[in-house]
Amino acid sequence: MTDLGERTLDWAGGRLRIVDQTRLPDTYEILEIDNVADLVDAIRRLAVRGAPAIGVAGGFGVVLAAQEHGAGAEQFAAAVESVRGARPTAVNLARMVDRVAARATEGPDALLEEALAVRDEEIAASRAMGRRGAALVEELVSEADSVTALTICNTGGLAAVERGTALGVIRTIHEQGRLALAIATETRPLLQGARLTAWELERMGAPYRVIVDAAGPALLSRGMADVVLTGADRVAANGDVANKIGTFSLALAARYAAIPFVVVAPESTVDMETPSGDAIHIEDRGADEVVNVRGTPITPEGTGALNPAFDVTPAELITAIVTDSRVVRLDRDETLRSVSPEP
Amino acid sequence: MTDLGERTLDWAGGRLRIVDQTRLPDTYEILEIDNVADLVDAIRRLAVRGAPAIGVAGGFGVVLAAQEHGAGAEQFAAAVESVRGARPTAVNLARMVDRVAARATEGPDALLEEALAVRDEEIAASRAMGRRGAALVEELVSEADSVTALTICNTGGLAAVERGTALGVIRTIHEQGRLALAIATETRPLLQGARLTAWELERMGAPYRVIVDAAGPALLSRGMADVVLTGADRVAANGDVANKIGTFSLALAARYAAIPFVVVAPESTVDMETPSGDAIHIEDRGADEVVNVRGTPITPEGTGALNPAFDVTPAELITAIVTDSRVVRLDRDETLRSVSPEP
Repeated sequence: MTDLGERTLDWAGGRLRIVDQTRLPDTYEILEIDNVADLVDAIRRLAVRGAPAIGVAGGFGVVLAAQEHGAGAEQFAAAVESVRGARPTAVNLARMVDRVAARATEGPDALLEEALAVRDEEIAASRAMGRRGAALVEELVSEADSVTALTICNTGGLAAVERGTALGVIRTIHEQGRLALAIATETRPLLQGARLTAWELERMGAPYRVIVDAAGPALLSRGMADVVLTGADRVAANGDVANKIGTFSLALAARYAAIPFVVVAPESTVDMETPSGDAIHIEDRGADEVVNVRGTPITPEGTGALNPAFDVTPAELITAIVTDSRVVRLDRDETLRSVSPEP
Repeated sequence: MTDLGERTLDWAGGRLRIVDQTRLPDTYEILEIDNVADLVDAIRRLAVRGAPAIGVAGGFGVVLAAQEHGAGAEQFAAAVESVRGARPTAVNLARMVDRVAARATEGPDALLEEALAVRDEEIAASRAMGRRGAALVEELVSEADSVTALTICNTGGLAAVERGTALGVIRTIHEQGRLALAIATETRPLLQGARLTAWELERMGAPYRVIVDAAGPALLSRGMADVVLTGADRVAANGDVANKIGTFSLALAARYAAIPFVVVAPESTVDMETPSGDAIHIEDRGADEVVNVRGTPITPEGTGALNPAFDVTPAELITAIVTDSRVVRLDRDETLRSVSPEP
């Protein structure tokens, strides 16, 4: 298998196959992963990334652990734990790992069945988010037949299994013939916007432009976008959202310019056990990613960096949270508790 | 002459000598410029940059024009005009060019005298801004003996002739032994923070860290800096400030986190003829700088970009404007009209 089609990852022949996102947009290469150590490495170095995608990958990680150690052994538990902790901010990694691992006593077939179910549900969730999100944007934007949408990081098929979250909504709007322009922030340090979102927008034939991250808030203040659409790594019970560094500044600017700011994320990223953003641990990924850009040093040698990978956007700056099964209008004082997911 | 010491540019032997800022931090190289075309090119490709520095360079540009064409000839006027228009956003380039060119009828010696006076005044202005700015920070920050200052772009000696504006204030605070940490945003697309500010902070032995631009607002929201210090390319009559793209997002976040946001700029950037930020033309510098980082492509081939080089920070988000001859506390309803420059 040399192409996963629209999918970013899939399972075949006892192996997890994932598009190596660190190589895009230059090279489209499929990694074949048959052991837990390689999966943890792939998650850590962001070869597979995006909250939905790593949730699905984590589920298959439990299957790999059982292949290596037998389901239920002590080494199995340790391997599962190493997958579970590979990205601390993404709640659905831990959640999907736990969900699949809970069937360990039923044997390896049950594990695979559950991991495949996680995959299929994620695909269905992407489609549902696209529909709900596009309908909401139609409601929020006055010139809904000609939408300019600003987005951050990569939240497309590459971040999920197919279609994705925020970029999936943009794809749906584009398929409906209503997309005037997608503006993608490059998303330093790892340039997921410039590398991956641009690659997906190009592939779907959508009109788009890339900007440096700092231009996002300024363009919003000049009214140059109609809506901001972002994903989420974790949604806290009060509606605070942890997402890629830079999301907060877009939310602030959107509020200042009275532009709707919409978070699109699967239910699996909603974490009612985390009361608010204050309780979310923010990963610092070290200096290397900051002081080098795709292998080229950009600072004097030995320069140190602060590298928070995520920030927290307070609920009060968010217009709405769109999931696969509900739209929560925070701007109308709805909450994650007051609006239940539809079955 | 192979080193300009603390200076970023100087005049010697009938030539303008400038540090080629496009080569830093890897290579310290002095350009020797003896004609107007080369100077315009150096300004356009940002070999010399920073509002004060290009004002001084522009003054010497008039001297070069007179050397090439004789002061007063029609070609002289055209050459002067080409220098004057090399960077449209920076008001003091035009202003310094006009100031020096006004003495054309007195002959070439008068032009040189005036250009040297512009240089010397800029050096004195940097020292004055450093003193005033450091005193203001001492007043605004509660733990004034241990200041963490966040800054954007490069506003140090490289942007002026010596010491600079916002980074000159940070230098002064460091010399006073009160600097806990300087945080420099990398400042995409051209990375003046990562390349130049880091180089200057390293040279002055100050504690510092570099961050990606999108991390600035998030760190402010977490209370990780005590003050934001920025320069300005142009200050409008109502206190709106045009500065490097990203400045606006820092001002918004500083306001949200109740952290003081201080603009440091020489009087020569105050433009009372520009009523407000709405009247400031924002240069779009084209896609190349965005889709390539130091020569490395970061997007799919052919990707387009929006590249506004500056943004406008509304006066209402600014705590104070510090110049070489006054401190205007916008947060106390002072204005550029109500507070006169001290002689």
